[in-house]
Formats: sequence, structure tokens, C-alpha cells
Amino acid sequence: MKLVAVGTMAFDSLETPFGKADRIVGGTASYVGLSASYFTQNINLVSVVGDDFPSQFLTELTNRGIDLDGVEMRKDEKSFFWAGKYHNDMNTRDTLDTQLNVLETFDPTIPSHYTDADYLMLGNLTPSVQHSVIKQMVTRPKLIVLDTMNFWMDIALPELKEVLKEVDVLSINDEEARQLSGEYSLMKASKVILDMGPKFLIIKKGEHGALLFSRDEIFYAPALPLEEVFDPTGAGDTFAGGFIGYLTAMEEVNFEVMKQAIIFGSAMASFCVEKFGTERLLNLDKKTIQQRVQQFIDLSQVEISL
Amino acid sequence: MKLVAVGTMAFDSLETPFGKADRIVGGTASYVGLSASYFTQNINLVSVVGDDFPSQFLTELTNRGIDLDGVEMRKDEKSFFWAGKYHNDMNTRDTLDTQLNVLETFDPTIPSHYTDADYLMLGNLTPSVQHSVIKQMVTRPKLIVLDTMNFWMDIALPELKEVLKEVDVLSINDEEARQLSGEYSLMKASKVILDMGPKFLIIKKGEHGALLFSRDEIFYAPALPLEEVFDPTGAGDTFAGGFIGYLTAMEEVNFEVMKQAIIFGSAMASFCVEKFGTERLLNLDKKTIQQRVQQFIDLSQVEISL
Repeated sequence: MKLVAVGTMAFDSLETPFGKADRIVGGTASYVGLSASYFTQNINLVSVVGDDFPSQFLTELTNRGIDLDGVEMRKDEKSFFWAGKYHNDMNTRDTLDTQLNVLETFDPTIPSHYTDADYLMLGNLTPSVQHSVIKQMVTRPKLIVLDTMNFWMDIALPELKEVLKEVDVLSINDEEARQLSGEYSLMKASKVILDMGPKFLIIKKGEHGALLFSRDEIFYAPALPLEEVFDPTGAGDTFAGGFIGYLTAMEEVNFEVMKQAIIFGSAMASFCVEKFGTERLLNLDKKTIQQRVQQFIDLSQVEISL
Repeated sequence: MKLVAVGTMAFDSLETPFGKADRIVGGTASYVGLSASYFTQNINLVSVVGDDFPSQFLTELTNRGIDLDGVEMRKDEKSFFWAGKYHNDMNTRDTLDTQLNVLETFDPTIPSHYTDADYLMLGNLTPSVQHSVIKQMVTRPKLIVLDTMNFWMDIALPELKEVLKEVDVLSINDEEARQLSGEYSLMKASKVILDMGPKFLIIKKGEHGALLFSRDEIFYAPALPLEEVFDPTGAGDTFAGGFIGYLTAMEEVNFEVMKQAIIFGSAMASFCVEKFGTERLLNLDKKTIQQRVQQFIDLSQVEISL
């Protein structure tokens, strides 16, 4: 199966209670690509970078079999840059600086050999760009997953609602689900959102796990209590990468398989936060991932005979 | 097995986004007793009320086989009263009024036929009162469960730490676990707290479920996403009642059985919040409870072959 993932590639400057990292590689496509690469070899990225982006990192991706034909490299321009500082609780952060640079005029042209993708992951971007990517697909992907954020709900809600009609899975956090639906109860919120188009809704709750909703089923994936969250940057994108990567390796997609994919995504995210940036994702192996997945399974396993 | 539960019996005046309830029956012992009564018939309450407390409610309890010999009835005195208002998120509330009344001088004498209890549930009270109850037990209970709150950590930490040395299970919420341990990570917090005495720690996270820790095991019980939380008052005590009631019906207590007890406690709490006060707990049956427990099991059930 072929996966196409669209998203930023960026520099991040981070400050957490554990230290600082200056201009390290980040961005949705970087995290999604790395995370998915542990599950599938047919990954095709769509993104944009300036000529300041390290070729060493791009080589790292291609060495993992990731196709970068969809990554636009712009001469004499700078890559997207974000700087942020996490609070002590690691759940809230302040944005210190955002420099859109190449992202300001990002309007991707999808390479023709990408347009028959089976799985399409649309990372958090302007809804109109996400929509344009869907339109460029020659065959309708088996599954389209879209990630977005409150920012687009604030400034581009009509466009977001348009693209939501075209996707299969929406992935947002609990506050965003409440904002998008106007409902506080996540049960009610899920119904409102599923009426907007998606057949599945993933609600990410950080240290409280994740929920998967379809019209008549619910799954609650726990989060593994961690000794330390070193840097939460990229955790959501790493989750998405593990999720879509796992699905891409499967023949069929249904609620049961999505539950499994959410556990794998959660496991990948739990690695991501152990080090700054993409560091931990560059040094994993299948056995370590399987052991972590087993921890997730054990965590909420209970035998009750009624 | 014999259960003794110690806690307040009170009047609550509540305001939630769904309405108001004036001077309805509440208090830890009321919720624990009702909730536990669906699992065991050998329940013995220790509490104190004034002569304003409705005899009808006390009869309701005795009709369920609950022994009230340990409930002190004081003439010409008033019962404990609490008034509060919940915010829209139902997770935060303002206390509008607290009248200790009979509770001010509560120093329970445990009836002699209570002192061989197998299970002892110490509801949230002054740590020194909780300690005095333990000392009055002639035989050491198989299991002592203690509930407390941030208030006692603020004003009676040394006394709280003393009684913690004597208990088997501590039940608190996530913020309280952080305050008591001085650690933000709940993993680290659990280690610090288990070093204080308890062999098991339950961390309640409201709509995010509950965690059970022993020294080398963790269990994450999900919370059922609900359409509506009508009134959260008593949910924690109802959880405790279901938990200890289920255990009281069991021959043996170990981590596996506690996991089951947490699911039953969570299911009972999910009923409690559906109506004001104790109303929903007065009208349940075993089949309805089993169906709810099945929903909890299904919620986090996943099959993965590694």
C-alpha cells in the first residue's frame, strides 16, 4: 500500500524544564515520516523547505526508503521556523516565535506517482491546501486522515468544514473537539463532528490517552504513565505517523484495525517525548516498539466474568 | 466478609448547569453505603448526624441491610452542610458554604461488633479521626482503604503521613497525588507515595479515568465518555463504595481483583452522575450494573498479536 503524507518540515527551537534545543529539525512531515517508517516502506512526503534545511536529515529519510519527490526545495529561501517554551506541566506551551518563510506561499503540486496513494495523511496546514491535495489525487485514496488545530477553526472555519466533508478520519485534541462542535461532552461532540463528514474521529488527550469514535463504537486508548516527558514536541505527529503507518501495512481498515493502529501510534508518541525533537525516533527497532505496545496492552487489560 | 465504612452524612445544596438541588442527602458514608450495597450485605457505617437528618433515608439504608449502630444521632444539633456550584466543565466547583455542625466534634466510638471488620474504608475526614478508627479495631482488617484531600495536606500533613503508614490503599485525585509527592509525573508521584506506607495507590482523574499503582504494576481504567454529567457530587465516594463493596464480596485481594474492583467502582460512579445526589444509586439493579461494566470492558478491549 502506498502512503502519501503532507505537512511541514521545519526548524524548532525549544525550551522545556529539562533544557533547551536550538534550531533542531522538526515539522509534521518529519515526525510522520520517521514514525511511519517503522511500519511501511512506501512513504511519500509532500512538504517545502528552504536551502537552509540540512541535507543530512533528508538523506536520513531517503535511507529509510522515504520518497521526497514531493518535497519542494526552494533556493535562497528559509525553512519554516517555530520557537516555543513548555510550562512545567508540559501540557501547555507559549509560542515565542513563528517565521512562516517558505510556508507562506506553500501550494504543493503532487508528483504524478503520488496521485494513486492508498492512504493520505494531511498534516495540520491551511484547510485550503489540504483540500487542494485531495483534489490532485487521481484515484480516491482508501483512507484520508486529516489533522488540524484550533487556529484554523478560528480563522478558516468554512474552509475547514469544506475539507472535512472529504475525509475519513479527523484527528484533533479534546479542546479542539469542543471548539469545533460547540459541545463540552466529548460524546456529544463526536456526534456533531461525525455529522460534518468524517467516519471516524480521534480525540487526543495527551497524558490522558486518546479516544476513537465511529458512529456506533468507542475505543479508549490509555496513555502510559511516564517517568519523564522530556520534550512533547512532535508527539501528536508521531502518533499520527504510527497510526497511518500501521494502517498502510494492513490490507483492510475497520474499527478493530484502527484500535490497533491507535495503540501503535500511542506507543510511538511515548518514545518521541523521551528525547528532544526527532532524536528518539531515529534510534528505534521493531522489538523495542513491540515491547512498548505490550506495555500499553497490559496497562488496561482486565478479566471480569459477568 | 465484614465492611466498616467511616465518613460524613450530610446535606448538600448544589447548583450545576442543569439545575439546582436544595439540601439533599449526601456525604461520604451515604454514597459509600449505597454503592457498596449492590455487592455485599455486611456493611456497617460510622458517621454522625443531627436530628434534622431524614429518618426516611436512614430507613432506606437499613432496608438494604446496612448496619447504622455506628451512626451517632445528636439531639438538638444540626447535620453537616455543604453548598457548592459547579462550573460548566463539571470538573471545577466553588464551595459556597460549609457548616461543620455535628462534624466539628466528631470523635467516633466504634461499636464493638464492628471491631473485627475485614475491610475498613476511611472516608475523607481529619487524619487524626481516621487514625483513631484504625486504633479501635481489635483485629487488624485485611484491607484498609483511605480517602483524603488537598485540604488535609495543607493543614494536617504530619497527621496524614502518620495514618498513611497504617493503610493498604490510598485513594486521591491527580492534583492531590502531585501535591502529596511533590512530583508532577504520576509515575514518580506513585513511587514517593507508596514509600509513605500504602501498598496500593489509586489516582482518580475524573473524566480521564483512574490509575491503580502497586510497587511494580500499573492499571489504567478508562472513564466512559458520557452524554451528560448531570451532577458530579458523590462520584468519588460512589467509586470508593463500589470498589470496597466489590472487594468485600471477594475471598482474596490482589492486584487482579483490585483492577476488577476499580472497573466496578467506575461503573457505579458513572451512574451516580446521571442524576442529582443519591437518586440514581437508589434505583439500580445487578443487571444494569453488569451491562455498564461490560461497556467499560469493551471500551478499552483490543486484540493485537505481536
